[in-house]
Amino acid sequence: MISRLVDAIRKKDAPIVAGLDPMLSYIPKHLIEKAVKERGETFEAAAAAVLEYNRAIIDSICDLVPAVKPQIAMYEQFGIPGLEAFMKTVEYAHSKDLIVIGDVKRGDIGSTSEAYANAHIGNVTVGSTSLPVFDEDFCTVNPYLGSDGIKPFIEACNKNDKGIFVLVKTSNPSSGEFQDRVLHDEDSTLYEAVGFKVSEWASMSMDGSYSNIGAVVGATYPKMGEILRRIMPKSYILVPGYGAQGGTGADLVPFFDSDGLGAIVNSSRGIIAAYRKEKYSKYGEEGFADAARAAVLDMKEDIRVNVFK
Amino acid sequence: MISRLVDAIRKKDAPIVAGLDPMLSYIPKHLIEKAVKERGETFEAAAAAVLEYNRAIIDSICDLVPAVKPQIAMYEQFGIPGLEAFMKTVEYAHSKDLIVIGDVKRGDIGSTSEAYANAHIGNVTVGSTSLPVFDEDFCTVNPYLGSDGIKPFIEACNKNDKGIFVLVKTSNPSSGEFQDRVLHDEDSTLYEAVGFKVSEWASMSMDGSYSNIGAVVGATYPKMGEILRRIMPKSYILVPGYGAQGGTGADLVPFFDSDGLGAIVNSSRGIIAAYRKEKYSKYGEEGFADAARAAVLDMKEDIRVNVFK
Repeated sequence: MISRLVDAIRKKDAPIVAGLDPMLSYIPKHLIEKAVKERGETFEAAAAAVLEYNRAIIDSICDLVPAVKPQIAMYEQFGIPGLEAFMKTVEYAHSKDLIVIGDVKRGDIGSTSEAYANAHIGNVTVGSTSLPVFDEDFCTVNPYLGSDGIKPFIEACNKNDKGIFVLVKTSNPSSGEFQDRVLHDEDSTLYEAVGFKVSEWASMSMDGSYSNIGAVVGATYPKMGEILRRIMPKSYILVPGYGAQGGTGADLVPFFDSDGLGAIVNSSRGIIAAYRKEKYSKYGEEGFADAARAAVLDMKEDIRVNVFK
Repeated sequence: MISRLVDAIRKKDAPIVAGLDPMLSYIPKHLIEKAVKERGETFEAAAAAVLEYNRAIIDSICDLVPAVKPQIAMYEQFGIPGLEAFMKTVEYAHSKDLIVIGDVKRGDIGSTSEAYANAHIGNVTVGSTSLPVFDEDFCTVNPYLGSDGIKPFIEACNKNDKGIFVLVKTSNPSSGEFQDRVLHDEDSTLYEAVGFKVSEWASMSMDGSYSNIGAVVGATYPKMGEILRRIMPKSYILVPGYGAQGGTGADLVPFFDSDGLGAIVNSSRGIIAAYRKEKYSKYGEEGFADAARAAVLDMKEDIRVNVFK
């Protein structure tokens, strides 16, 4: 699957993934009002507004970006209708030839991790019938429980030609509380130790020059990104934290390999809620999808100027 | 919320939670066959079988145990019908006056963690309407992202009188890969460092003698349990790993406080799939719910003999 992502990044000349994290507060009022008028103040209405918002954004940017990354929490919060909207978003993105990275951060052990892996990047079997469930192409996974939690996902990657991104160094301010702790035995940090494990796991699911087993490293920590880029030479790095969280174009440089591959940068709010920013105010609320497109073009240029100069 | 759990444990004289992790392979054939006959080899059929299985087990053991712990992965794998069965299981357990610990192991940052917290132990708002979603009483949370990921859950605990159990030392064989790493600065391990943080977080949501912020520590690591019991004096410990994973009655001793409180022991397979064990074979497959009851009674006795001797 990673070779498909690399091809799509090359074809669109954009190492960019649009994060579809539709907080209700991001969604233009007219979409919410329409949904509430039809369905009342219900989770069904919220889910309908989310889906309409996502579809318009996907229509507007699908020729520019290789992938989208829906954050499942934003759908799960609306219960069953919300999760239906998640599935329909995945389906719609696929219909527009986009690769879907499910940001689900699941992580458990043994048969439980296997159930998550099958649900998100595999098939689930009832009797002799086997079907995909959430049907993402990649998903994010939490490593805290160790290999027992990751191996079922690696197996699903190999069986179904899918991929995962393992959380290594997350973009948030408190990520250092545990991830930056220095380990006694090798004078490396926990995030480096996780990186070394990712590198080991990566060798179990190679697909071309890269592995289906990637890593999440925040744009807000470029020096750590540089270290981790070296520790995990075969892993694509999914880079959150660009834009709204403070990561700049210049911060992205160390995440990429010398050939310009190896990283894909996420922007969520910066794209899907661009219309709320002064810079894109000319589009107005109704023009949210056009604002998203403009934001993607600006992000692409920011990366070109800073990374591919 | 923790005071409600403590009261229920006292009242039923059983620090036991039944894990409702219904793998299809656990569910007696007659339930599967009935569901498939009615609905075909579909996720709807799987979900219907799961729900019927859960209800029969809940009916059989609800007077003996204070709480149940559905593992959401086992429901999520069946997509929308599976998650509907999860919600109906929570609702049914509540109707039998059971406390529900949602084993969801969610963990993200900021507004995303808030969305998970609201979905699982809070309310989600659309317009001026606010409703619970999955409606558990407690849920499990992954600490890898640090305080940014935990604080929204603590806020939800305080706002809605709910609780969480933070993963500290998990029961699985590879849990030591990261959790047991010795830290350079204080010669403690990562699981101890997480334990210290849990203790800090615990002070933010006290409810009687204990905190709503509990911890998960596996029965398979009793010596670490002893250390963690001291590090987190205000936190209830949810103890998985008893029975099928190898934890014995004697292993449970260090998890409890001297007054016999402070821990609640989970058994999943050992209860819900007891009918498959030689010891309970006299119940047969049709008698799975009675076998579950017998297993709970035996577990209660095992804890009494070993812990409360």
